[in-house]
Amino acid sequence: MKPTLPVGIYGITAEKFSCGRDNREVARAMLAGGIRIIQYREKRPDKTFAAMLDECLAIRALTREAGALFIVNDYPDLAMLVDADGVHVGQDDFPPDKVRKLIGPDKIIGLSTHGPEQELAARKSGADYIGVGPIFATRTKSDVCAPVGFAYLDYVVKNSPLPFVAIGGIKENNIGQVLAHGAKTVCLVTEIVGAKDIAETALRLRRMTDVF
Amino acid sequence: MKPTLPVGIYGITAEKFSCGRDNREVARAMLAGGIRIIQYREKRPDKTFAAMLDECLAIRALTREAGALFIVNDYPDLAMLVDADGVHVGQDDFPPDKVRKLIGPDKIIGLSTHGPEQELAARKSGADYIGVGPIFATRTKSDVCAPVGFAYLDYVVKNSPLPFVAIGGIKENNIGQVLAHGAKTVCLVTEIVGAKDIAETALRLRRMTDVF
Repeated sequence: MKPTLPVGIYGITAEKFSCGRDNREVARAMLAGGIRIIQYREKRPDKTFAAMLDECLAIRALTREAGALFIVNDYPDLAMLVDADGVHVGQDDFPPDKVRKLIGPDKIIGLSTHGPEQELAARKSGADYIGVGPIFATRTKSDVCAPVGFAYLDYVVKNSPLPFVAIGGIKENNIGQVLAHGAKTVCLVTEIVGAKDIAETALRLRRMTDVF
Repeated sequence: MKPTLPVGIYGITAEKFSCGRDNREVARAMLAGGIRIIQYREKRPDKTFAAMLDECLAIRALTREAGALFIVNDYPDLAMLVDADGVHVGQDDFPPDKVRKLIGPDKIIGLSTHGPEQELAARKSGADYIGVGPIFATRTKSDVCAPVGFAYLDYVVKNSPLPFVAIGGIKENNIGQVLAHGAKTVCLVTEIVGAKDIAETALRLRRMTDVF
């Protein structure tokens, strides 16, 4: 059966910002901190496909043990090889209807969106959830568009039937605003993978999402 | 039924070296020049997956019409989405036995190899053909190893049961040596995609392979 997007904190790997810790270690700490969904997001040439496969196999085992979802960014083949729960794609990647043909009906597909037109297209293309952002400016991704601010988030909260994750430049000091605007699932990348104590930080952030 | 590696010239796309011509146009000219196998080799971030998908759909149609094989480099998912005839991978990519799980028994898998140990591993992993090279120094690929010269080519000709394509720095002025050493399928990238008249150049090179 197709899983649904968990509420709470959405974790994403980012080795570059993980202060020397490898993605397995980061994933383990995220899970210890109560995170219920982890997306693996690494790209060539930073990492080879062979290395990504090894890491994803390890993180798949960890997430399965913890009962958490595991999503692979951009690469449906990698997701299939490790039996991930889904694939996340951007606007310039394979479109959701094509990804669906590869991964089948029981996996979830997330699509990054940056405005109302893309939200509508996401519904039509069979995406199971959408990314909404970047809410704030971010330097974690190099190929990112300008912040959409709260205007698009408010639009989605009001108009979209799709589950969504708010993403982009969200930190401990501004997550309250994002939650106040109606986000139930929130992604913080650098704030978590770069934290001194990842598990403790994830737990603290999770408690903030519980308040709303 | 699984196709076999054609003898003659093995064409590879390389938009960067195609003098402003797009990959569809280059593929069409290659086919007009008698090339029976074309590999699509583009990478992010030079090109998005959405753009690669469009190009591969077009080249799949062209190769099918011409009765030529179409191979996708590195990305099994892309190969599956366009029903390519196979996938080519390098030593740092998804290993052939994993690719096989994705694309099934009727598609062919090529593996780049650079020495006898890798040739042996290729057999064990279920590769259908191997790349042998780089024969000469090349600047077409940035992540390429040192030339293996004729020593490894001679080894493969003498010892390997696998069909192979000789590759790396091969030009019109040195292809004769490669053929004299026993190669039946030869890949030239820049020499073809960068040629003023691609079809005419491919035909002329093809005739050289027929002599041996």
